[in-house]
Amino acid sequence: MTAPVVLYAGKPAEREAYATCLPAAAVAAGQDITLIMDVDGVDRAAVDYLVLAPSGPLTDFTGFSRLKAILNLWAGVEQALALPLPQDVPLVRMVEEGLSLGMLDYVTGHVMRHHLGFDALVGSKAPVPWGSNAPPLAQDRRVTLLGTGVLGRACAERLALNGFNVTGWSRSAKTIPGIRNLHGNDGLAEALDGAEILVLLLPETAATRQIIDAAAIARLAPGAAIVNAGRGPLIDNDALLRALDAGDLGHATLDVFDVEPLPDDHPFWRHPKITVTPHIASVTRPETASRALISQIGRGERGEPFKHVVQRDAGY
Amino acid sequence: MTAPVVLYAGKPAEREAYATCLPAAAVAAGQDITLIMDVDGVDRAAVDYLVLAPSGPLTDFTGFSRLKAILNLWAGVEQALALPLPQDVPLVRMVEEGLSLGMLDYVTGHVMRHHLGFDALVGSKAPVPWGSNAPPLAQDRRVTLLGTGVLGRACAERLALNGFNVTGWSRSAKTIPGIRNLHGNDGLAEALDGAEILVLLLPETAATRQIIDAAAIARLAPGAAIVNAGRGPLIDNDALLRALDAGDLGHATLDVFDVEPLPDDHPFWRHPKITVTPHIASVTRPETASRALISQIGRGERGEPFKHVVQRDAGY
Repeated sequence: MTAPVVLYAGKPAEREAYATCLPAAAVAAGQDITLIMDVDGVDRAAVDYLVLAPSGPLTDFTGFSRLKAILNLWAGVEQALALPLPQDVPLVRMVEEGLSLGMLDYVTGHVMRHHLGFDALVGSKAPVPWGSNAPPLAQDRRVTLLGTGVLGRACAERLALNGFNVTGWSRSAKTIPGIRNLHGNDGLAEALDGAEILVLLLPETAATRQIIDAAAIARLAPGAAIVNAGRGPLIDNDALLRALDAGDLGHATLDVFDVEPLPDDHPFWRHPKITVTPHIASVTRPETASRALISQIGRGERGEPFKHVVQRDAGY
Repeated sequence: MTAPVVLYAGKPAEREAYATCLPAAAVAAGQDITLIMDVDGVDRAAVDYLVLAPSGPLTDFTGFSRLKAILNLWAGVEQALALPLPQDVPLVRMVEEGLSLGMLDYVTGHVMRHHLGFDALVGSKAPVPWGSNAPPLAQDRRVTLLGTGVLGRACAERLALNGFNVTGWSRSAKTIPGIRNLHGNDGLAEALDGAEILVLLLPETAATRQIIDAAAIARLAPGAAIVNAGRGPLIDNDALLRALDAGDLGHATLDVFDVEPLPDDHPFWRHPKITVTPHIASVTRPETASRALISQIGRGERGEPFKHVVQRDAGY
């Protein structure tokens, strides 16, 4: 049996990582592949699987006469659907555990960072009194998480496992064991009241846009920290800046923004009480994405249907 | 039934915290107490329970004719045993969950800090390329923990729960589920090889002193971080400084030292690649200590034997 030919048409910046991770995942799965890492000069008629970043090096998709599947590297498919791809070849979405595992790391890590006061600790190089500045225990730290969908629920459970006093809020009633569950408008006020670390994992909808406004911020504990790993428009940015500058709010760690990439001249980049991360809380990682890609190739080679095939006419 | 009289003879700096936490713990336990927060002018003959910090305001212990127990605020009893305490009154050690919970927070938090690169993130206020600098997943981060006693085991399990690739090492063989278990001298070399974050929770013994020397550091991954929450003498400080200055080691976060308090002029305080915390990874916290104290008072009032009574002749 001939090894299927896999062409990497992702971002050049990630070529090195995939050149390592794809063969490693193939070996681990016992799946032979012939991997081509460069689109230039490739024999298109010999390619079985196209690994595609919509922003990658390929814009012309003619001549791929033998393709069994187009494996999108991105979870979102809007950009792929806008390309002139062969329409008779299955287009499959990237579904890989790295997206959710990364979010768990990000949320747990940044909550720990604010809980233990790392910014002040790392910034200070002066002796302090012995035994001073011991932070409270996680069980005495009130963490509120807005948005308890699949990802939010996993984050809430992880924070509870780490001992935090966790309140979870969602629009409709949900019950997550080990945390305080609140919902609806009344529940929102209660969830915000006295929260010391507020984590945002809501989707953007008409109901969630600017849900964190001046009134919401005023409910938080003095000096509270906000971690936004949901969507930029959840926060009223003017109210956020006013609360930070007034000292009512201690810090904001933001991974998502109204406009992305965040423009280089945006004040968030340089604000002393704002930490910007460039939308990395949940990104596709070569290690885990490669395992997902090889799994799809294995399905194709065994004649099994691909998973996560895009319904092109529905747009997802 | 008269409420027992409890005298707080702890550090003045913690008086306010205990004045809040002791009554709160008493209410929560349904245990009436008459709390006296000031040793000056107290009617010693009326005191039932003495809450004692050996470095606190009391040095003369005459006149406490009705004492039912001396409740030490510290886990260690060497200092209390050196005081002229009434010998016919039980002296009980502080055993409270805050000591271990604080260590779990400290270890998990600082591992997350090094894993997610918070120091560089917080220090930088310049725009970065969108989507750049995503850290690896916890499952791809090799964390080694030396010392898997009660506390070390709990930390290893917590790190594994957070997804890290954890190796635990102890002198004798132990089996902790969900991590790679190594032991003995050969196991030590294997545990250190390629570790990216090394956590030290060993006790100080002849066998562990300077266990982290130049040869041990050389086994770690380039740019590795060390978190020492065990004992200062575990590390060869000269080798540590050389490895940090040469760039072989990325960072050291130290909570324990050869001499404590760490002298103000010690180079560790100001070293750019060293974070000093003032022995706070595991400290008695008023919230949890108050619950332990009230529990002991409850036992005394119900005529039950106290827990954790010090064997004075054995010294512990």
